[in-house]
Amino acid sequence: MLAAAVRLFNERGYDYTSMFDIAVSLGITKSSVYHHISGKEQLLQMAMDRALDGLFEAADEVRALDVPALERLEQLIRRSVIVLSDRFEYVTVLLRVRGNTEVEQHALDRRREFDLVVTELVKQAQAEGGVRPDIDPPTAARLLLGMVNSLTEWYRPRPGGAESIADAVTTLAFEGLRA
Amino acid sequence: MLAAAVRLFNERGYDYTSMFDIAVSLGITKSSVYHHISGKEQLLQMAMDRALDGLFEAADEVRALDVPALERLEQLIRRSVIVLSDRFEYVTVLLRVRGNTEVEQHALDRRREFDLVVTELVKQAQAEGGVRPDIDPPTAARLLLGMVNSLTEWYRPRPGGAESIADAVTTLAFEGLRA
Repeated sequence: MLAAAVRLFNERGYDYTSMFDIAVSLGITKSSVYHHISGKEQLLQMAMDRALDGLFEAADEVRALDVPALERLEQLIRRSVIVLSDRFEYVTVLLRVRGNTEVEQHALDRRREFDLVVTELVKQAQAEGGVRPDIDPPTAARLLLGMVNSLTEWYRPRPGGAESIADAVTTLAFEGLRA
Repeated sequence: MLAAAVRLFNERGYDYTSMFDIAVSLGITKSSVYHHISGKEQLLQMAMDRALDGLFEAADEVRALDVPALERLEQLIRRSVIVLSDRFEYVTVLLRVRGNTEVEQHALDRRREFDLVVTELVKQAQAEGGVRPDIDPPTAARLLLGMVNSLTEWYRPRPGGAESIADAVTTLAFEGLRA
């Protein structure tokens, strides 16, 4: 049911999707849908949590690695691309949210918290001499995540595609395009 | 009038903005608004054109430079950041459009045309040995523009800010974060 709802949210927009539309797309009645969930907002929250939980799990895994901060940062960017690819429709829902309700505001707060995890890693890597000193860590974090998040606009997941797109992102971000 | 409309489109969303809202925000009557323009869609088109014209002017200027393709590419990315900063509200409108109408489709076509200009520059720079050979040009172009476009999500224009954010973008993109 969550997958069906998320597909409709992305196709038509959350505001233009009704509980009736979700029921129709599943071939069940609206009251059957309400038997399982309290309403459209619960589906939105579940969808955004699926995206955010993936990102925070990646952050936890990376935190546990016993390697320099630069490598943890690179791993986190790589894993963010893979979460985005694996949970594509959920991340797309998350990134379109503008904070119009409390549930949306909470998701935006968690996104900002994730931005801070990345900013902190850039700072640590800079202190260790792994990241160039002439870049502002919050700006670097936002540009990195901006590049990753842009994938929802133009990338379409395909088998084996996540690794190669993660390679492209990390090569551009850490080595730069210049030959 | 265009500036007022664009502000409302970004605050409330295009779909949730009426010609009446636009008139109210200007302190004039709805019929006065219609005296100048045919409707909401004309305002949307004018807004998107203002953004796209800026980008294509930058592309034309860069094409005229007698420097290696790598440098033209770097200049085009830098100038795209400056267009985005100078025409912030217009670019924001452009990037939120999903292609629901013919006017929106036309704007998406022009965006794709601009992507191709950037892809072509990456290819040329690669052929000249300026850009690393192990990156796919269309992917590089989209990641570059994804990073630039992400500015509408988190950057707010301020006097003198465009140059420093353009420096951060081009440093990350061309030199990479690694020290």
